[in-house]
Amino acid sequence: MEDPLGRHYIIELYDCSHTVLDDMKTVRDTLMEAARIAGATIIGEKFHRFSPQGVSGVIVIAESHLSIHTWPELGYAALDLFTCSMDMDIRGALGLLRSSFAPGDIDVHYMERGVLNATKRRAPELLDFAPAVV
Amino acid sequence: MEDPLGRHYIIELYDCSHTVLDDMKTVRDTLMEAARIAGATIIGEKFHRFSPQGVSGVIVIAESHLSIHTWPELGYAALDLFTCSMDMDIRGALGLLRSSFAPGDIDVHYMERGVLNATKRRAPELLDFAPAVV
Repeated sequence: MEDPLGRHYIIELYDCSHTVLDDMKTVRDTLMEAARIAGATIIGEKFHRFSPQGVSGVIVIAESHLSIHTWPELGYAALDLFTCSMDMDIRGALGLLRSSFAPGDIDVHYMERGVLNATKRRAPELLDFAPAVV
Repeated sequence: MEDPLGRHYIIELYDCSHTVLDDMKTVRDTLMEAARIAGATIIGEKFHRFSPQGVSGVIVIAESHLSIHTWPELGYAALDLFTCSMDMDIRGALGLLRSSFAPGDIDVHYMERGVLNATKRRAPELLDFAPAVV
């Protein structure tokens, strides 16, 4: 089986601290540190704090990106780590993210992106499926 | 069933034009137009062209984000559209993305993010599962 071009970790963080999820500096510093631990090359970043609460942020790395969107009032954050490198310390980065956000509950989905030799693919027509589920 | 906090469209674009996927302006303009059609509020953006080829870019929107990573040499792009708004024109945005990138093959995964009343969740310990699949 051919390696995928990208590895995408889709992480649901539940029951986190309101204070942590609403502090843009803490959220940014945590993602930047996770990128550093992973060995990523940081290309750019954009973080934003919403009023009355919530933080969104993305770090573009040479290996793809990290993103986060937080709902402090619900203790929830949607975290994505996408890498096209096979040489990053994903374990270390996920460990830092876990310890920093200290979720009471977590769910991690792993998705391979860009599997070019996939034997089964949807037809272009099935893009129409996507809007149908909105 | 409670609405999810976020709707995440994970889109695999195959057999695209090398020229399109390697042109940062075209890629950026396409994602910005998709965001506009969707009715998104654009907060910030970061696009980068790699040498010798390839483009990565993210648009942070008030409703979450759009991201893309392209492999022109393989005709492949990994596209993500994440929204926490129930009022965006996702159909229109996906239609624009499809017509602009004109993939020969496409796969769209839809994931609900932040389903707070989920009856089944993994235990925090299972975060260790994620590194195991690296």
